[in-house]
Amino acid sequence: MTTEQDCLALDAADPLAAQRVQFALPDGVIYLDGNSLGARPKASLQRAQQVIAAEWGDDLIRSWNTAGWYDLPRRLGNLLAPIVGAAADEVVVTDTTSVNLFKALAAAIKMQADHPGRAGRRVIITERDNFPSDIYMAEGLLGWLERGYQLKLLESWSDLPAALSGEAGQQVAVVMLTHVNYRTGRMFDMTATTAQIHAAGALAIWDLAHSAGAVPVALNAANADFAVGCTYKYLNGGPGSPAFIWVPQRHHAQFAQPLTGWWTHRQPFAMQPAYAPVAGIGRALCGTQPVVSLALVECGLEIFGQVAMAALRAKSLALSDLFIALLEEHCAGHPLELITPRAHAERGSQVSVMHPHGYAVMQALIARGVIGDYREPQVMRFGFTPLYTSYQDVWRAVMVLKDILDRSDYQVDAKRDAVT
Amino acid sequence: MTTEQDCLALDAADPLAAQRVQFALPDGVIYLDGNSLGARPKASLQRAQQVIAAEWGDDLIRSWNTAGWYDLPRRLGNLLAPIVGAAADEVVVTDTTSVNLFKALAAAIKMQADHPGRAGRRVIITERDNFPSDIYMAEGLLGWLERGYQLKLLESWSDLPAALSGEAGQQVAVVMLTHVNYRTGRMFDMTATTAQIHAAGALAIWDLAHSAGAVPVALNAANADFAVGCTYKYLNGGPGSPAFIWVPQRHHAQFAQPLTGWWTHRQPFAMQPAYAPVAGIGRALCGTQPVVSLALVECGLEIFGQVAMAALRAKSLALSDLFIALLEEHCAGHPLELITPRAHAERGSQVSVMHPHGYAVMQALIARGVIGDYREPQVMRFGFTPLYTSYQDVWRAVMVLKDILDRSDYQVDAKRDAVT
Repeated sequence: MTTEQDCLALDAADPLAAQRVQFALPDGVIYLDGNSLGARPKASLQRAQQVIAAEWGDDLIRSWNTAGWYDLPRRLGNLLAPIVGAAADEVVVTDTTSVNLFKALAAAIKMQADHPGRAGRRVIITERDNFPSDIYMAEGLLGWLERGYQLKLLESWSDLPAALSGEAGQQVAVVMLTHVNYRTGRMFDMTATTAQIHAAGALAIWDLAHSAGAVPVALNAANADFAVGCTYKYLNGGPGSPAFIWVPQRHHAQFAQPLTGWWTHRQPFAMQPAYAPVAGIGRALCGTQPVVSLALVECGLEIFGQVAMAALRAKSLALSDLFIALLEEHCAGHPLELITPRAHAERGSQVSVMHPHGYAVMQALIARGVIGDYREPQVMRFGFTPLYTSYQDVWRAVMVLKDILDRSDYQVDAKRDAVT
Repeated sequence: MTTEQDCLALDAADPLAAQRVQFALPDGVIYLDGNSLGARPKASLQRAQQVIAAEWGDDLIRSWNTAGWYDLPRRLGNLLAPIVGAAADEVVVTDTTSVNLFKALAAAIKMQADHPGRAGRRVIITERDNFPSDIYMAEGLLGWLERGYQLKLLESWSDLPAALSGEAGQQVAVVMLTHVNYRTGRMFDMTATTAQIHAAGALAIWDLAHSAGAVPVALNAANADFAVGCTYKYLNGGPGSPAFIWVPQRHHAQFAQPLTGWWTHRQPFAMQPAYAPVAGIGRALCGTQPVVSLALVECGLEIFGQVAMAALRAKSLALSDLFIALLEEHCAGHPLELITPRAHAERGSQVSVMHPHGYAVMQALIARGVIGDYREPQVMRFGFTPLYTSYQDVWRAVMVLKDILDRSDYQVDAKRDAVT
């Protein structure tokens, strides 16, 4: 049996333990929802004050140049690049994940339509279990194209090889997957899956919302085609902070997307009515960005600049292994079903557990200061963020969960909890 | 001749003079660029602290509900609505002006395509002198539609009636105009122009980037079809703060746009793969918004809640009239060309003046603390923001300009300044 002392010993030996002090975390809270909204870097308050009082208030319009506001999407993109295995000038931080996915999917479809041997392909593949907004955005885009594109939803991730093989595979233009599933925490092998997709003549778009800052990602090594992701989860950029989009160097010349706002123009301040796209990653921008929210992304990225992803990954797996082990040791008699893979290679940085009264149990946990979250159906999600989660946090969270379950100390709402 | 004493007397009698204290303005600066980036409401710093430290830092993920983050686009839209003559639940503050224009134009095109008598129309009209990003966005959208839509650029605003008449007019699906021109400050008569557009069977989209908070706007009274606009200029929302989009009640049921992110879903947290749009203005949203930048928009809107647009308009015109009169009295010998209309009904809240060395003269003004801005070709723009611009500011700005021109105290850059 694992004891709390064991957990304390793990914390004492943890090379990342010193990072926690960089985050402002409220007393009395065990925060296991950094996969939804990352905790606040303490530096963010002073940075906001600088942007608001000095750059906006004092320097006013001049700050677009003097404070580097124009360059923020590119500069932050370059800070983010190593976290996802991208090269310099391949990433911009801009707009929302949904909008960036629209850009990437449109660009991938156009690349295929312009490809002599692939112009007739009309199928876009994703998982039915993908994050719904990705599915909605794809439907939204395809509905406006008039050449009969169709979205095919895989019932399971394991159906992908079959969907890419034979006659059917020859119809596939693009496969759009989320690297780590938002609900289950299951992770794809990006390199192998991209290779399968390429072997079928399709392009691979990866959504890194639950990957960037959570697990090692090597976009260029995996030869991926496009990627988008989020800065407000594991990257701790702040609520709703702008998202990112990655376009590899090899696709820059062909990259074209429909949201051709002035920030994508070669000479935005020449104010010419004729459109001429800038060379490079700037084509993935669109319009003027929310500077205060954007600037705060840097506070989170600066912390990632001080740690190695290998160390983060090692601790992430140790935390989620510990959580699973403690669940089995202490909550074995309860109807909990682990839906996150046990295999490290298939696991992101969260653990998801189904319970017939998952919604009610999560509400009870939150009321007692253990903050995870709930996703339909019946899924309690617990995110592990090695920068500020301790082994003792994991111990305490499981002890609170055990107590709630042992005493059935939760309020079942018949409308929310369908007992299966 | 107008004297500085006359200006001081105007300030002493100005009912809006008391508003200036709500803004943080640096010493030694006369800020005439609120048409590009509005000045900072003092309340913004404390509001940012609340959002960052308390809502993000302490309450973490719970703030999406407890702090009303989810409702911000709608709540701010309702605060903004009276400023542009919109009704409740017709405006959301979200995304960028360019992205919102894309939504509005796509929706308008679809409405026309679905209209039995108008489905064959394939022409979208705008002005060659429209803000370039609007033109680029329209080109970007039309390039992805496959039914041969074309963008027609009017050489002059006065060409619109001809373009809407006869056979040509029967091909026009949508007219997309900026209400107040960014370069000249010329303002359209929204009611009359919308009526002309409707008479031709077309729909009218208005970009209010230089109108919202600057001039009276009555979208519903004008029977406009869609509008978008900016919160970081006259509304003082902060650098790059999220934009807005207006969809009138009468178009809600038919409104459909391609950026169908999860915030447009009827039940975003049901996490269903099937898309079902929410009823109402929520369809104009897309994805998760940058909360810190978004929240600061409220500080600017709160000030507008305390003043009457009629008073703002009266002072705006008095300021720009004064500026024009002082230019004529003091700078008459210099090659300045006024390109903003003298007629009040055609003037926004800026005055634009061409000078052969406009770029160099503006740099000299800025170096001496008079901040306007420059737009190609040769245009010096001076924005008048009645909430924080005084009559004495106008006097001093013209005196500095006069001194620069009289002494030719500017550095001509041959590459920038083409002498005509």
